[in-house]
Amino acid sequence: MNVLILGIDGYIGWPLAMFLTERGYRVVGIDNYDRRRIARETDSEALVETPLLQERTDKYLGFTGFEIKTYQEDCKNVSALKKILETEAIDTIIHLAEQPSAPYSMKDIESGSYTIANNVGSTFSVIQAVIQHNPKCHIIKLGTMGEYGTPNIDIEEGWIDVNHNGRSDRFLFPRQASSLYHTTKIMDTDLLWFYCRSAGLRVTDLMQGPVYGLEVYGAPNDHAFLPNFHYDDIFGTVLNRFVCQALTGIPLTVYGNGSQTRGYINLNDALRCIELSILNAPGEGEMVIRNQFTQLFSVNKLAEMVLSAASKIGIDATISQLPNPRFEKEDHYYHAKNDSFNDLGLQPTMLDQEFLTSFMNTVSTFSSRIDPKKVMPRIKW
Amino acid sequence: MNVLILGIDGYIGWPLAMFLTERGYRVVGIDNYDRRRIARETDSEALVETPLLQERTDKYLGFTGFEIKTYQEDCKNVSALKKILETEAIDTIIHLAEQPSAPYSMKDIESGSYTIANNVGSTFSVIQAVIQHNPKCHIIKLGTMGEYGTPNIDIEEGWIDVNHNGRSDRFLFPRQASSLYHTTKIMDTDLLWFYCRSAGLRVTDLMQGPVYGLEVYGAPNDHAFLPNFHYDDIFGTVLNRFVCQALTGIPLTVYGNGSQTRGYINLNDALRCIELSILNAPGEGEMVIRNQFTQLFSVNKLAEMVLSAASKIGIDATISQLPNPRFEKEDHYYHAKNDSFNDLGLQPTMLDQEFLTSFMNTVSTFSSRIDPKKVMPRIKW
Repeated sequence: MNVLILGIDGYIGWPLAMFLTERGYRVVGIDNYDRRRIARETDSEALVETPLLQERTDKYLGFTGFEIKTYQEDCKNVSALKKILETEAIDTIIHLAEQPSAPYSMKDIESGSYTIANNVGSTFSVIQAVIQHNPKCHIIKLGTMGEYGTPNIDIEEGWIDVNHNGRSDRFLFPRQASSLYHTTKIMDTDLLWFYCRSAGLRVTDLMQGPVYGLEVYGAPNDHAFLPNFHYDDIFGTVLNRFVCQALTGIPLTVYGNGSQTRGYINLNDALRCIELSILNAPGEGEMVIRNQFTQLFSVNKLAEMVLSAASKIGIDATISQLPNPRFEKEDHYYHAKNDSFNDLGLQPTMLDQEFLTSFMNTVSTFSSRIDPKKVMPRIKW
Repeated sequence: MNVLILGIDGYIGWPLAMFLTERGYRVVGIDNYDRRRIARETDSEALVETPLLQERTDKYLGFTGFEIKTYQEDCKNVSALKKILETEAIDTIIHLAEQPSAPYSMKDIESGSYTIANNVGSTFSVIQAVIQHNPKCHIIKLGTMGEYGTPNIDIEEGWIDVNHNGRSDRFLFPRQASSLYHTTKIMDTDLLWFYCRSAGLRVTDLMQGPVYGLEVYGAPNDHAFLPNFHYDDIFGTVLNRFVCQALTGIPLTVYGNGSQTRGYINLNDALRCIELSILNAPGEGEMVIRNQFTQLFSVNKLAEMVLSAASKIGIDATISQLPNPRFEKEDHYYHAKNDSFNDLGLQPTMLDQEFLTSFMNTVSTFSSRIDPKKVMPRIKW
């Protein structure tokens, strides 16, 4: 199986490349380093500086004997992408090449415009390159649970049967997001679904919840292979941010009343979900949507768990409730399904005190690198 | 009331400018002439060549005494747009500045990419300029009935209450379109709805059916003021195309079995609907969606009506059933609501034999300009 990872330099992209090569896949990757550029421009650099791709893959080859071929390329360039698909005889694309920050998308007109152009543009490019290369090539696209928002009904996995005035039909599950970034993911889904129907494409759209974790199980023990771990207000997901705050004596920044509930997933489980998606490709013209999270938590619950784990390793952490910088409901119904991956055999890594303590110990190795200036919310909407 | 029309050079834009000035509105317009450029590039020029905006508005001033100020500008330029909003003290924007052709959006990668960038980009620019200028400025956006597609349930006006597992919520009506162009309109709606909720914008989204007609009631009798009437396969809506085909002895090009049903509207009714939308602005943070059509017809029914009207004026027209070049259902349920404008007092112009005969007589004045090469479908998807 020849897999192409778009966005291989990212938090999920690089760990996925290691994970899949170890499991026998031939992995090729593309990145345009936009994430690094944005991190520099917004003073949101990752916890651990990672080498550029060529250096990283050379080193990985030395450690493991596995080759990962990479291209520094913008996947919005359809002809370049098509050429890579053909040269590398790709049969599965993992599309992670999107601007992934909600705050960045809401920063200003330029960042918003970039987010639309990059995210919808990269998805359109992937679609067009696949149509030209081989319409049977499986596209696995990273969406977000945020596409659904927080509806007052149970969240199904992508689809819903609607009964209305005595008739019924099946539709994409209603989606209404709480940032421009999340809205571009809704657009991606609509675009992919149109080309599934009209061009017979095979698409898996993964509605992923916030991911956490620094350690990639099975990866060689060298800083060069660590994920692109962010704890800042722009790219940092909430649990990663809380852990870094606790380790440096900064009160945990809970936005609003902290009742916001989401589905979370361990980085290693996210990798396994993507492999399960590769192994369970949809048929021609089919779009499979899977909700990719393992446990539901409120922000308050996460904060409490971090406080408790911190105390176990001798840290007296505190919570600071900030006015919510985001446009989102705080008190809301939230019941989301995630049977899909469980049915495919996912063995979830549980977020519990044991994991959290170990997670904090791992991150604490890098405590001196944590910059307190990067954790407070700088963008409001 | 100071109204800004984005896309004032278009089939609806110019007639709307005349209609609104006659009714006492101060009208300002913007166009970047992209429609003219695309028409030239695709050999799809309109039936009657119309003057450029400055010449047209000068002439209109001479005929009527009404001034229409225009800017040759791209409304994707947020700062230019914002400056115009401020200079002209605009309180209502009619956003018609989109690439409106489904076939063109499916022509090739470049035209598809342009359609996404232009349509979603112009809507984003309007949103951002309004937020900076005055969030209370009413945005009236031209959507399309094609956003809904052809669902197996009744089509409501934009919203639907969904009951699911004993709970309920109200959502945007499910949408799945049958071209890239129509999909960009879905994206526009999602974008506008996000900024209604997060920035308190006031938006009317008009789900318009195919428009027909050449005559603008009340307009001065001069070719310079005729709408940008297209009968080609790229920009020509079906009834306008049928009329031109009948007049030049070309069999009416029915795509597929002709059972496709849509909601149609006379150009003059479309103008009146937009005025009714101006007069009934939503509140802050509210998005009103109105279905803008007056009558449902199948393509076969339209073709039969044109045949019958043609015979009344001594023309023996025929029908040619072509393999459907489009991705669309031919046999489908179609029951769409349009109470909204009727409730606001719209007096619909009926598409009947009398209207059709008069319409054909008007168009026949220009019969010699109809180029038979422009009517056959050139783009398939």
